[in-house]
Formats: sequence, structure tokens, C-alpha cells
Amino acid sequence: MDVRAAVAFEAGAPLRIETVQLEGPREGEVMVEIKATGLCHTDKYTLSGADPEGLFPAILGHEGAGVVVEVGPGVTSLTPGDHVIPLYTPECRQCKSCLSRKTNLCTSIRSTQGRGLMPDGTSRFSFKGQPILHYMGCSTFANYTVLPEIALAKVRSDAPFDTICYIGCGVTTGIGAVLFTARVETGSTVVVFGLGGIGLNVIQGARMVGAGMIVGVDINPAREEMARRFGMTHFVNPKDLGPDGDVVGHLVELTGGGADFSFECVGTPTLMRQALECSHRGWGVSTIIGVASSGQEISTRPFQLVTGRRWIGSAFGGARGRTDVPKIVDWYMDNRIEIDPLITHRLKLEQINEGFDLMTRGESIRSVVVF
Amino acid sequence: MDVRAAVAFEAGAPLRIETVQLEGPREGEVMVEIKATGLCHTDKYTLSGADPEGLFPAILGHEGAGVVVEVGPGVTSLTPGDHVIPLYTPECRQCKSCLSRKTNLCTSIRSTQGRGLMPDGTSRFSFKGQPILHYMGCSTFANYTVLPEIALAKVRSDAPFDTICYIGCGVTTGIGAVLFTARVETGSTVVVFGLGGIGLNVIQGARMVGAGMIVGVDINPAREEMARRFGMTHFVNPKDLGPDGDVVGHLVELTGGGADFSFECVGTPTLMRQALECSHRGWGVSTIIGVASSGQEISTRPFQLVTGRRWIGSAFGGARGRTDVPKIVDWYMDNRIEIDPLITHRLKLEQINEGFDLMTRGESIRSVVVF
Repeated sequence: MDVRAAVAFEAGAPLRIETVQLEGPREGEVMVEIKATGLCHTDKYTLSGADPEGLFPAILGHEGAGVVVEVGPGVTSLTPGDHVIPLYTPECRQCKSCLSRKTNLCTSIRSTQGRGLMPDGTSRFSFKGQPILHYMGCSTFANYTVLPEIALAKVRSDAPFDTICYIGCGVTTGIGAVLFTARVETGSTVVVFGLGGIGLNVIQGARMVGAGMIVGVDINPAREEMARRFGMTHFVNPKDLGPDGDVVGHLVELTGGGADFSFECVGTPTLMRQALECSHRGWGVSTIIGVASSGQEISTRPFQLVTGRRWIGSAFGGARGRTDVPKIVDWYMDNRIEIDPLITHRLKLEQINEGFDLMTRGESIRSVVVF
Repeated sequence: MDVRAAVAFEAGAPLRIETVQLEGPREGEVMVEIKATGLCHTDKYTLSGADPEGLFPAILGHEGAGVVVEVGPGVTSLTPGDHVIPLYTPECRQCKSCLSRKTNLCTSIRSTQGRGLMPDGTSRFSFKGQPILHYMGCSTFANYTVLPEIALAKVRSDAPFDTICYIGCGVTTGIGAVLFTARVETGSTVVVFGLGGIGLNVIQGARMVGAGMIVGVDINPAREEMARRFGMTHFVNPKDLGPDGDVVGHLVELTGGGADFSFECVGTPTLMRQALECSHRGWGVSTIIGVASSGQEISTRPFQLVTGRRWIGSAFGGARGRTDVPKIVDWYMDNRIEIDPLITHRLKLEQINEGFDLMTRGESIRSVVVF
């Protein structure tokens, strides 16, 4: 069938809006009409060509929400009409990872997903007879897409698509890192590096679990207002500390010895180190959320770990997609978390490149394409 | 009073056996007759001059066992005749760290201990009228020493001094890292880098908690026999993999995906990285136990953490000295753990430098000075 999509034909070039062909779902697959999709830094990173695992031509997008329109043979958990959020981290509930109870990183379809293909090793998308690759198993920059059943979270039908799409990546990544990965405790002191879309969700996650002091760190003073609205209690702008400013020392002093929990939400190794080292001797847990550029490394003195700090990371917030994403949608609908203020721009598919420009200029928190 | 001690007068020089003066215990302090003391790599490191925090002249030694001979005013938990193990990590049960319930790194006397002094800021040792510093709050290379009450674990009186002294550092560091820091689970796959005194104790700790596969990694093939005796199930000699051998890849394959728990017991940043990276995607916990030389740093790609590996460290095995050390003595007396085969050499105080030579040549696991 014909679908409208923003296609990444090559690295470094703008997306092109085209009518492409989509095959129907095969065994264990589901076709979804995408109603809205967020634009994420990861899409931009892949489009830029800097991602060594990026493949072209592809239909990017991994932060969507939509409605099931057709199910393939063997699909049992979804039927047409169900509202769903695509999952770039699936949840098969049967692989070694899912059964470990220790990780959300389901490995059942990892190899084909990494090659831009459905689990059977083929693509459902094509353009002028040539295959177009899927992206992160989702490809939400198209008004229809096909996904494996295990990569869809069924959510309540009264939730608006143009906000819950953000739960498909940013919201869950931030809130989940607090709840599922770091397991922040009530009354804890939390330090958050980077007050963009992820950092703000870390902050509201920390507020949700009753953290005491919530310190935000960002070099952009314009971030302060929104962060305070989401629960930040103290703001630190490293630029205010001067060129020789000791950010770590300042944060350790401000927090009375260091953060119980710190989070890096930028993707910069220097900040990852600062986040670790500003955490409390003896028990500080520092969680890396940001994705660093290819080849970059983190480092520290091993003494930092031997004296009790723990260095961990989080992908998709440690959330099991099919189990936890519906709960997060409920929290949003129950006003336990906020999403609406984070959706700063709503665009048509034809404006998608403008959305990436807004991101580049730091003018948006989240831009959402509404189909 | 006169005591016999091996004194470190300066960095890089052998210890000198001298008669030095020891003052009696002051408020909150206890005098202990040391009956036996192990020689540890940390003593050697400080004596070499490579330790930037090393101070001289000092009486080294931190792995002892002995008998209380006198208590100062205010001491309530110990009386003369009690058998004790000195604790370089004290347990005051009142500081922020002790009360956190999250760390064993009591901070109550850290600043004076780091300066080689008792908590009141003075030393009890002197030689020809000049003060001699304490070391790690213990100074067990003397047949009598003074310690704070909070730095002594009271242990059962039927345990032999010349083996339980090793619980004062090496045994607890290794077994504790398994039990208290990493919390290895029954059936887990464990990889241990370095099969010296610490590594062997990690191995028997892993056996004690019912680990499944226990892989030891060492470039010295002579270590294999003892390690198997302590519970190692598989031995990997990186030298056998050839000059371009991929140790991490080999271990991941051997363990069917990576170690659930890995431990670095050498103090080498390269091995710390290998230990992290051979741990299992999604949930592997890698614990640094070895102490790296000053200024050395560890590094890895943040992707290793974002995909679920956890990088942590352990000091004194995460054990709370006064609470946990007596239990470990019980485990030894109940034959739940072995110590005797690890004590490869027993020396007189006058032979202490020979003990360090044995260590340098890799001929001992543990040498113990028996007073």
C-alpha cells in the first residue's frame, strides 16, 4: 500500500517526503497507523552520518503512537483498533535477557533490528521497487509502519497520540532511569546534568518518587524555569563558576557531601565523569543516560569506585516496554507526570526538517509531527 | 613502655627492627598485644614510596590479631583478655556513613588516621624522643600497639592468631567483595582476575555462596592448582591466547555471554577494563578490588554501561569491621572457609624484610610474622 514517509536517502541530507510502498504484516507482525511521532536526537545523530551503525536509505523515527490496523498470522495480543506505542526495545518475555529479570534489553530480534530489517530478514518498505530499511525496529516517520508484535505496547485508548508518543522514548528514558535503573529513594539528593528533554523527565521522575534536593546543571540559563516547574530545587550553571570553576567541588558542597544519585543526560564524557565524581562517597550511584559519540570513552580514577561510588547506565530507562510503558501512560493520564509543556512544537510531516533545525538551534524541547 | 617494632624510617629503605616507646591508651583507646600480623601488598606499596599518602617514619602493618592488655577511659565494649582484630576501616556506628546503612566506609576518624595519628591528633609511638607515626590506624608491625576502640573487632578466643590475622585484610577483602559488595547470587557465573591472596578469597567466597562457574584469570600457571582447591572451575591464562589474544572475547564465549559477576584483584587498569567488558550485557556487575598506582585511570566506552553493565568497587570487602569480621572468624572456625593453605610462610619479626622479598618474587601467598 502507499504510505507517506520522510525518507533518509543518505547521510547528511535532509529527509525527503515521498510516497513509499508498505507490505502488509507477516507472521507475528502488526501494521500500525502512526498518528504522531516525536523527533529525537538519536534520529538526528543517525541522519547526520556520525552514527557508525546508521544505514541508508531508511525511514527514521522511533518515538510514535498510533492504532493497529492489521495483524499478521499468529498475533494474539493485539487486534485492529488497539492503541499502541512502538518499542525500539522490544519485550519478548522469552529470551535469556527477558527471563533474567535483571534487564529490559530484550535480545530476541536484536540482530535483524540492527540491520534495519524485520525478524525474518526482510524489509516491508520499498521505493520505486528498491527496499527501504526500517530504523530501530520502528520507522515512525511514516503514516503507516509494520512492527513485530513484541515491539508494541498496548495503551489505553483515551490518551492523546500527540503527547503520549513522547513516552515511546524521551519520557520513559528519563523517568525510567530514576525508577527502574537507579531506583532513586524517597528523600534522596539528586543531581541532573543537562536539562533538555531527558533531563526534565529525570527531574519529574525524581519528584515523583519523593527525592529531597533536586539539583539541575546546565550551561543554558533559559532551561532553569521549565526545570523548576518540573521539580528542580537548585540550579547550577557551570559558567557562573568561572573558567576555573570546580563543578564537582561545588556540587559536593551544595549537596552536603555529594549526590545520592546523579544522572548524565547529555552524552558528553566529561560530564559523565563529573556526574560520577559529584556522587557521594560510599554509596553514590551515577547513571549514564546520554549517548556519547562513537569512539568516545569515559574515564576516572578507580579510587572513585573503590570508595563506594557506582557507575551504571540506562537504556530506555530500564523499562520493559510492554509491561511498563502502559503504566507510564496511566501516570500521565492521572496527572502524576507532565508531558504537555515539553511538546513545544507540533508540525506536519512536510515540516519535519524544520523540526530538526529547531532541535539544532536548541529552540525546542520536543517537536512532534502529527499525521 | 618498650615495644619491639619494624620501623619504616624512610621510603624505599628496608624496615629496621628497633625498640620503640609506646604510650598507654588515652580516652576511647585500647592497647593490644599483637600476636601475629600478615604482610600485605599495601604495606609494600607504602614502603616503596610510590604511595603519595605515605608518611614516614611510621610503623606499618594493618593485618593483625592479638589480645587486649589495657583499655583507656570510656572504653565499654572491650576488656583486657579479649581477642581482637585491628580494623583499618573502623565502625563507629554513629557517623553519617555508618548510619547510611549503605557503606562500610566509616568516616569518624578518617582525617587523623590519614595523617598517621590517633583521633586526638597525636601519636602513641616514639623513638629516641621523636614521634613515630601510626599506619592505617593499626601499626601491627609492633608487638604492642594502641588503637581506638571503634577500630577493633572482638573475636572468639579459640581462633589461632597466626591465621585469623589474615581476616584483618585479605580474607575479608576478597570474601566480603563477593558477599557484601557484589552480592553474588547462587548459580552465578563469576570471573576473577588475579589469583593471588585476594583473588583466592574471592574464589572461595564465590564457592561459599554457591556460584556455578568460577573462572580464574592469571598469567602465572602456578596459581592454577591452589585456585582449583579454593573452588575455581575454569582457568584462563591470557598468555595461552597468544600475543593478539582477545581475553574479553574468550571469556564472553567461555561464560556463554559474559560473567554475571567479575572481580579485578590485581590493581591494573587494563584488567579492570577487561573485567568490566567481559561481564554480561544487561546485568553484569564488575567489582574493582585491586588498588591502582597513584594517578592511573580506568576507561571504557560509555556504551558498556548504557547496555547494562555496572562498574563498582570494594574496600575492605564492604565489611563492617566490628559486625562482620567476627562472623568471618566463625566461618573459618566452622570450616566454611579455608585460610591455612594461604599462609605459606611464618616468620619472626626479624625476618620481616625477607617476607617482603618473598612477596616481590611471587613466592608467597601470605607471609605472617608471629611475635
